[in-house]
Amino acid sequence: MEKILNYLESSRESFLTQLYELLRIPSVSALPEHSSDIRKAVEWVAARLSRLGFEAKVYETSGHPLVFAQWTKNPDKPTVLFYGHVDVQPVDPVEEWQSPPFEPTVRDGNLYCRGASDDKGQLYTHIAAVEAWLATSGSLPVNVKFLIESEEEIGSPSLPAWIREHRELLTADVVVISDTAQFAPDYPSLCTGLRGIASFEIEVRTAEADLHSGSFGGAVPNAIQVLTRIISQLHDASGRVNIPGFYDDVLEPSDEEKDSWKLLPFNEHEFVKSAGVKATWGEPDRTIFERIWTRPTLEIVGIAGGYQGKGHKGIVPARALAKGSARLVPKQDPSHVLRVIGNRLRELAPSYADVEFRCGHGTPAVSIPTNSAWVRAARSALEKGFGKSPVFIREGGSISIVTTFVRDLQLPCLLLGFGLPDDRIHSPNEKFSLRDFERGMRTSAILLNEITSHRTGT
Amino acid sequence: MEKILNYLESSRESFLTQLYELLRIPSVSALPEHSSDIRKAVEWVAARLSRLGFEAKVYETSGHPLVFAQWTKNPDKPTVLFYGHVDVQPVDPVEEWQSPPFEPTVRDGNLYCRGASDDKGQLYTHIAAVEAWLATSGSLPVNVKFLIESEEEIGSPSLPAWIREHRELLTADVVVISDTAQFAPDYPSLCTGLRGIASFEIEVRTAEADLHSGSFGGAVPNAIQVLTRIISQLHDASGRVNIPGFYDDVLEPSDEEKDSWKLLPFNEHEFVKSAGVKATWGEPDRTIFERIWTRPTLEIVGIAGGYQGKGHKGIVPARALAKGSARLVPKQDPSHVLRVIGNRLRELAPSYADVEFRCGHGTPAVSIPTNSAWVRAARSALEKGFGKSPVFIREGGSISIVTTFVRDLQLPCLLLGFGLPDDRIHSPNEKFSLRDFERGMRTSAILLNEITSHRTGT
Repeated sequence: MEKILNYLESSRESFLTQLYELLRIPSVSALPEHSSDIRKAVEWVAARLSRLGFEAKVYETSGHPLVFAQWTKNPDKPTVLFYGHVDVQPVDPVEEWQSPPFEPTVRDGNLYCRGASDDKGQLYTHIAAVEAWLATSGSLPVNVKFLIESEEEIGSPSLPAWIREHRELLTADVVVISDTAQFAPDYPSLCTGLRGIASFEIEVRTAEADLHSGSFGGAVPNAIQVLTRIISQLHDASGRVNIPGFYDDVLEPSDEEKDSWKLLPFNEHEFVKSAGVKATWGEPDRTIFERIWTRPTLEIVGIAGGYQGKGHKGIVPARALAKGSARLVPKQDPSHVLRVIGNRLRELAPSYADVEFRCGHGTPAVSIPTNSAWVRAARSALEKGFGKSPVFIREGGSISIVTTFVRDLQLPCLLLGFGLPDDRIHSPNEKFSLRDFERGMRTSAILLNEITSHRTGT
Repeated sequence: MEKILNYLESSRESFLTQLYELLRIPSVSALPEHSSDIRKAVEWVAARLSRLGFEAKVYETSGHPLVFAQWTKNPDKPTVLFYGHVDVQPVDPVEEWQSPPFEPTVRDGNLYCRGASDDKGQLYTHIAAVEAWLATSGSLPVNVKFLIESEEEIGSPSLPAWIREHRELLTADVVVISDTAQFAPDYPSLCTGLRGIASFEIEVRTAEADLHSGSFGGAVPNAIQVLTRIISQLHDASGRVNIPGFYDDVLEPSDEEKDSWKLLPFNEHEFVKSAGVKATWGEPDRTIFERIWTRPTLEIVGIAGGYQGKGHKGIVPARALAKGSARLVPKQDPSHVLRVIGNRLRELAPSYADVEFRCGHGTPAVSIPTNSAWVRAARSALEKGFGKSPVFIREGGSISIVTTFVRDLQLPCLLLGFGLPDDRIHSPNEKFSLRDFERGMRTSAILLNEITSHRTGT
């Protein structure tokens, strides 16, 4: 291992030179005029991996191409599948960049360039790690596959279908993704859960058509008032969801996670400021981490009814509509949650109104058990790579590709974010700390070794 | 009086012939291609009144013209100002008419034609009445003025300015308007009150911008949820407005009115059906008549916030807006009502949200005291004209021209509706009962006499 880490250190400049080549390709997936750049970036990765000894192939999809590459010369060893992406966000407003967006520039120990952190730089840590292994020992301690797409920034529209059609290529033991961030500088982080979501609509009708508020106002029900009364009863005054069964099955985080969160630097004032709100809100007996990571929530995301134009209209509105969603946590079944919401809405519906509940899309949460061999390997690698004990964090939203790996391919995922929360990944002056780039490469190289030993040694 | 009523009876055919001429003019004010028809109708009325001995003049306005005519040869007698309009609603869908919309056709005792009830037919009852007086006695028992406009169906945009500029022409003792309906067949009705209105907007902001519901949901306030919670507290569960001071100053109807309402045929099932609702709603200890005529109400007329497009969006909305209005009853001051609503909203606003209250337009209610000499004269005329004791009714909405007469010109108004609720005044197959046409003419002729005697005799 020593030799490998030395190789990484002595090859730092060469790795950066390589990465700069990739960063200079303006592979903006949202802009059609960059289609050929996208292809160039994909081909660059394929060529790079081929040179290292991987079988690499560019695959066409219904959208932009992707590259799948594999090195599987250790049939009795576990297989690691690295996922990443080479497409980037647009660079507007370009005038706010302090150096040209596609010209890698180092300032104050940071590498500035679009894609530096999201995701070319992070992705490159894994390419460098396999190079170090292969250059030093002529082999890898595990089997390695790379699935690198180029449509992540536009929602990965082609990837799920490609994955369904190429399941056999993707057999693996664990997926490793570095496309997120550390909780804070020097807090190497392992993400152990993503919330799911279940969406729905509520429609209230109180009359066949809007009524004249002079002729009928005061004597007939008002659809907006019915809807607002229903919605206002979905939470109690403290912020807790007031729906029987809503919190059924909710899995509390492991003690290990809770202990880990106590170590996280968190300043409520900073959180409030970053959210642009006046104060926090929500379940009073829960910490902010619990509220956004481990507790299901119910949000009304849109509402519409009656007259919304300029001025005023004297009507009693006949119809009002709200859209909502529940963020789900591990063990919750989206259809159960939608069912209890529907039951509660029907219970709250007054006899003088028709209340329709329509279920939308449901995706369960993703849970990454903290006690697996993979997590133990990752913690050990992060600790050695960063020289700091890693923390467990979670993600309050969903990452659709992770859901695909976990649910469709039944693969455990390790989310090792080497970036930082202030990397400005979708804004001007995106950066990636060179120190984290180095620590990421070390972590990745060590992880391959840890996975072998954990797999075989425990 | 006998001679006059006989004249009305014997001239029935001639009156209808005249009215048919006016009805055949397709004076649709909403359609620019009918501008010349509008003018033709106005000029027809001016010519008709001139022939009867009135000083009649067509006045240009910023929109369609109007006619003002007067016969003021009784300087020591009261002056009656008749208001009416000769413009009509569009006739679409024309295929639903059983006879051509602008061809007066009698079926089953009803005169079918656009404008038959609203308002050419009703207006013509007063022209016939003055003709009967002038043809029979060579004089009128009072002074009479006619203000007949041609923009009522498009909201009378030019009339208020014209009235302000011609105040001196409009000096009168009482205004008589027949542009409404009887409560039901054989229920000659005198309208004694119109509700006013005060409108407002509520805007809630909880963050600088919509937030990602994965990253923040559960830990930050939601503008829609704040707004719905506020709105839901503006009424109690029974339907009463739950705002301190909201019912201040509310004038209860006179015993005479309340007694009168007991005589009205009212079937809640029919009311529910005509409104297209499942059930009535509102202050539980109040009758439907009270709820729509004499009780102030608070309606949310529109609401908007968050994502309203197709599908779903995972946000915590930062902003939500509602529009509302209070229908006001006699003695309520719109600015007081808006003030107490604003106070309540500020009280309900949680510390973690910015709640802005914006006052809109306010118009007080109109009250027509039931104990005036004018009302006594009108009741007597209706009783004699219809052979039925009249009832007091009210109107839940505002009639802007009545508000102008009452508030700007300080004139008492008599609202004598000769039409019927099922005259389909804005729909295909508009009709006017010929029996009500005759009873209207008689009532108008008698009213002129009653006004003289009430004015001089009490």
